[in-house]
Amino acid sequence: MINLCLFGAGRIGAIHAANVSQHPDVQIKFVVDVNQTAAEQFAKQYGATVTDANTALADTTVTGVIIASSTDTHADLMIRSARAGKTIFCEKPIDLNIERVKECLKVIDDFQVACALGFNRRFDPQFNQLHYQLQQGKIGELQMVSITSRDPSPPPAHILPATGGLFRDMMIHDLDMARWLLDEEPVEVFASASCLIDPAIGELGDVDTAMVVLKTASGKLCQISNSRQAVYGYDQRIEVFGSKGMLQANNNTATNLSFSGEQGVITEKPLHFFLERYADAYKAELDNFIETIRGTTNPLANQQDGLKALMLADAALESATTGKRITIN
Amino acid sequence: MINLCLFGAGRIGAIHAANVSQHPDVQIKFVVDVNQTAAEQFAKQYGATVTDANTALADTTVTGVIIASSTDTHADLMIRSARAGKTIFCEKPIDLNIERVKECLKVIDDFQVACALGFNRRFDPQFNQLHYQLQQGKIGELQMVSITSRDPSPPPAHILPATGGLFRDMMIHDLDMARWLLDEEPVEVFASASCLIDPAIGELGDVDTAMVVLKTASGKLCQISNSRQAVYGYDQRIEVFGSKGMLQANNNTATNLSFSGEQGVITEKPLHFFLERYADAYKAELDNFIETIRGTTNPLANQQDGLKALMLADAALESATTGKRITIN
Amino acid sequence: MINLCLFGAGRIGAIHAANVSQHPDVQIKFVVDVNQTAAEQFAKQYGATVTDANTALADTTVTGVIIASSTDTHADLMIRSARAGKTIFCEKPIDLNIERVKECLKVIDDFQVACALGFNRRFDPQFNQLHYQLQQGKIGELQMVSITSRDPSPPPAHILPATGGLFRDMMIHDLDMARWLLDEEPVEVFASASCLIDPAIGELGDVDTAMVVLKTASGKLCQISNSRQAVYGYDQRIEVFGSKGMLQANNNTATNLSFSGEQGVITEKPLHFFLERYADAYKAELDNFIETIRGTTNPLANQQDGLKALMLADAALESATTGKRITIN
Amino acid sequence: MINLCLFGAGRIGAIHAANVSQHPDVQIKFVVDVNQTAAEQFAKQYGATVTDANTALADTTVTGVIIASSTDTHADLMIRSARAGKTIFCEKPIDLNIERVKECLKVIDDFQVACALGFNRRFDPQFNQLHYQLQQGKIGELQMVSITSRDPSPPPAHILPATGGLFRDMMIHDLDMARWLLDEEPVEVFASASCLIDPAIGELGDVDTAMVVLKTASGKLCQISNSRQAVYGYDQRIEVFGSKGMLQANNNTATNLSFSGEQGVITEKPLHFFLERYADAYKAELDNFIETIRGTTNPLANQQDGLKALMLADAALESATTGKRITIN
Repeated sequence: MINLCLFGAGRIGAIHAANVSQHPDVQIKFVVDVNQTAAEQFAKQYGATVTDANTALADTTVTGVIIASSTDTHADLMIRSARAGKTIFCEKPIDLNIERVKECLKVIDDFQVACALGFNRRFDPQFNQLHYQLQQGKIGELQMVSITSRDPSPPPAHILPATGGLFRDMMIHDLDMARWLLDEEPVEVFASASCLIDPAIGELGDVDTAMVVLKTASGKLCQISNSRQAVYGYDQRIEVFGSKGMLQANNNTATNLSFSGEQGVITEKPLHFFLERYADAYKAELDNFIETIRGTTNPLANQQDGLKALMLADAALESATTGKRITIN
Repeated sequence: MINLCLFGAGRIGAIHAANVSQHPDVQIKFVVDVNQTAAEQFAKQYGATVTDANTALADTTVTGVIIASSTDTHADLMIRSARAGKTIFCEKPIDLNIERVKECLKVIDDFQVACALGFNRRFDPQFNQLHYQLQQGKIGELQMVSITSRDPSPPPAHILPATGGLFRDMMIHDLDMARWLLDEEPVEVFASASCLIDPAIGELGDVDTAMVVLKTASGKLCQISNSRQAVYGYDQRIEVFGSKGMLQANNNTATNLSFSGEQGVITEKPLHFFLERYADAYKAELDNFIETIRGTTNPLANQQDGLKALMLADAALESATTGKRITIN
Repeated sequence: MINLCLFGAGRIGAIHAANVSQHPDVQIKFVVDVNQTAAEQFAKQYGATVTDANTALADTTVTGVIIASSTDTHADLMIRSARAGKTIFCEKPIDLNIERVKECLKVIDDFQVACALGFNRRFDPQFNQLHYQLQQGKIGELQMVSITSRDPSPPPAHILPATGGLFRDMMIHDLDMARWLLDEEPVEVFASASCLIDPAIGELGDVDTAMVVLKTASGKLCQISNSRQAVYGYDQRIEVFGSKGMLQANNNTATNLSFSGEQGVITEKPLHFFLERYADAYKAELDNFIETIRGTTNPLANQQDGLKALMLADAALESATTGKRITIN
Repeated sequence: MINLCLFGAGRIGAIHAANVSQHPDVQIKFVVDVNQTAAEQFAKQYGATVTDANTALADTTVTGVIIASSTDTHADLMIRSARAGKTIFCEKPIDLNIERVKECLKVIDDFQVACALGFNRRFDPQFNQLHYQLQQGKIGELQMVSITSRDPSPPPAHILPATGGLFRDMMIHDLDMARWLLDEEPVEVFASASCLIDPAIGELGDVDTAMVVLKTASGKLCQISNSRQAVYGYDQRIEVFGSKGMLQANNNTATNLSFSGEQGVITEKPLHFFLERYADAYKAELDNFIETIRGTTNPLANQQDGLKALMLADAALESATTGKRITIN
């Protein structure tokens, strides 16, 4: 039996717990949350025990931790888990401060624990298949990547500052996909952004609409289009273009029903948001983490990926703010 | 805890067992199979006990049975289960002999047990949604139904006689869908069929390609197109047409990836066969059965549906054989 | 210069005249119509001369005739044109009476003139390409054909008797496509039909909704679905299925625009009706006729095709009326 | 009769001549080309007379000129035509030198002649409809535009210098579309470009792959993706996104045929290149020019549009060269 400790009994923690329950030989032994009530309800539902971080990390039967608590606790819990020798799964971002992220990575490195980072989209069956075919040379030499990523609606404006803003909270996923698909580090970043949806977002110094262009050393180009509000649902598409053709990953829908009526032919909107769109990705991500604990594989996205995506996000933010193209070393 | 007895430890039994395991308060207590080795392996995997039918049916803690054994055992097990007061789930068909089916239904009626029949397609999320929208009046008055149903490859010819042939084994699913969607009993059946794929099928007196036209008393029309071999995969489409428009349920694919290359734009084939295409339907079907045991709902397809679909299949077979349109009373 | 005589200055005559005007060395020299005003207006627009049939057919510079007048005049004009040695293009049907059609064909045969019949769909670029790929063996051995053919709205009920009804006016096009695609004569016809759209149609002894199954001697099957009213537009689809795959010809739309909004993803309805849908087919049909006059090709659809399609239409009507499958000799 | 003079008897001149021939009351009276043989052949085919520019422009019966000669002759011919009081249609670009363009525009302004510029894509039925729906408020407030524009194969490298390179030859069309759709001038331009397809292009100082981001004063964003070689054909797509949804213009194909086989479901590639893709646009563009001569409408794209698109192209080139975002005054 593999015993896990879950930090954070919220919505994303519940997804991971449900996926763990599909594995007969894995269980969430401990759940830790500052909200005692939430922790207890959670513990009851999933047969776990409520405890504190020290106790959980001191338990030698616990081999892995899932960090799904608030962003400001990630780095601390990762460091403590690494020191306790646990295999780590952490939701992105590690931290919003690059220096803090580097400190955290040093400890993980020193204690040589495996660390998976929650870039769940890499596990989406469709994007995963696209990546696989790209690696297989289906489109020849990759030349351009286009990522469209739009949320159905913005988060409440008041929580935006804590998230780090559009580039570090939302686009960071797309920047990770860009790095993964380009298979080469971007060396130049240009961003242009606006507040076109909700003035309250702009008043907080954030943006809700953004476009980015990345370039790698060999000249590959990538463009990203972000919006906080697509009224037709969660728009998640990727297009990779190369010397032998193009692969496109399109939106997923609940069904393939179509209705032909006087207005035209109507098909379904994309699945509503990330919980629906990436349900399979969350499952596969957790499978990958469990296999990592078993020592049979490595994380598909790790702490270094977390650092590099954040660096790109910071560069994009700087570019959008200064109007300058930013060079990455 | 709801305790079930599973008759038949084969492929379809395994699907039901896996779906049962998603329900924390339901378990397969007993598994019964003429193949002792298969039964034991199965019991081990799902934590069940191997036993015989008498013992299982005599156990008062068992409230439901899943009959997934060979077709010739269905009616007998249904009758014995009904007499033992169990809620029944049985794979289709009840029996290939109409008189035997009627005997069986009489017992179920006498003992007033609920009985679900495995017309899994009614539970397919897409077809279910199509049916719902049809009932809601989305296309106004229904006028025509078109069902395309083609297997990726024929079963081994030698097992065909035991299945009852194309009409009673394969088209019976489409005839059930026709009844369900038409919401009115067909009163006329015409069938035309050929052996175009494998002469061995013809030598056994069966066909591999068939078209059927149904008509209801109010004049609604339905056409069915069947083939035992679509090289591009399991082709399962439904189109309903009415006074206000048309609804089409299209094939499901593994992903929505498309590749644009020198040959054209290539998207994925339909999911390979029924295990993939109807995975969600099998889950929903079992949920419906469990809710039936709990007394909170009724079977979406019951024993009467089994009888009526078989009567249509027999009529289609007679029409294809005689060249005459058959009238159903 | 090729000189033509056009019989019938109506809507379909205007289409042919416009297409003729694209050929710099072909002209409509004479136009003949019982409605003198229509004929004169037409003559003015297209630079033709109004005359009567005798004069036109006696003019030795006229080498071809286009018969686009009312159905009851077709056979007479064909016979007179054949006797005058003209190459004939005639809108379908030749006549609604099979015996009269045979008389007409005998004269054409005796005078050995080439005769094209207006089965315009054979010239539709999409259906033509489908036929070509079928002939090239793209789907291997053909096994099944499915034709969906639905008008946007029924003609005024009072004109229905003159048209010969749904089978001989509307489905005759689909029966011709079936013959052309099957590349083998149907030997069995079954039809089922209803009046579901407009009771006035039923009162005139006609139907507005019909399904047909055809079978050839080698066992190939074909199904046709007809409706006089598809509220989403002119629904013209063909699917051919064989041992190596399936070809589908889908509806044409004005543009490939799609709108994603709160209701879903909306694309355009099919083109409204035959004038829009088959505009290119009418052009290609006339090109074929002009090449026939020049002696460089033969009609893609000729008088024999007209006879055989009418025989199938009559058989379908008989089947729908009697409920019996009809055998064609 | 409207008499036109055509400058340039090449491929694009032939398209305009063919479209002129559809108008019974318009003719190409004169054709002027430095290649006397080409001019004579052309004159013969279209019933025109070969002459020189002076003679043609001095002819008072000539009211319009079509300038389809080489780029370096455009400005001179426009100036001379303006002075002669002719209505002008000129292929883009006016000139590759901004100062020369301004000189030219001044003359057109002084002589108050109407001038149409060959931004043919504005006339594409699909893009035109997209623009119309955008103007009608179909997607609410416009926020983002995405233009994908890829050629099937690069022009011969040796002609590239004369064209002005990717930004001024190819992307200028997309920059014009951007201006037209944004309905507001871009004030910032950022470009990133590479030579990834053919090193010979790079050796000439040009690029073959480029991405651009534009921003307007109100914060609307636009991204453009260009490639000189899409092996699957001419990829011409536009997506506009706003507060109430998204409109997408997709590629056009020769037919809507699909083939389902063992490899998947294959549909047609986009139409091969601009002659096929924009055939209807060229027709509509010429209709617009003829209506402009008649005084019943104004050019949909005029000389000012030519100047502004060139300014954006120059800015994009400067940005790609310097790595800086360029501000447009």
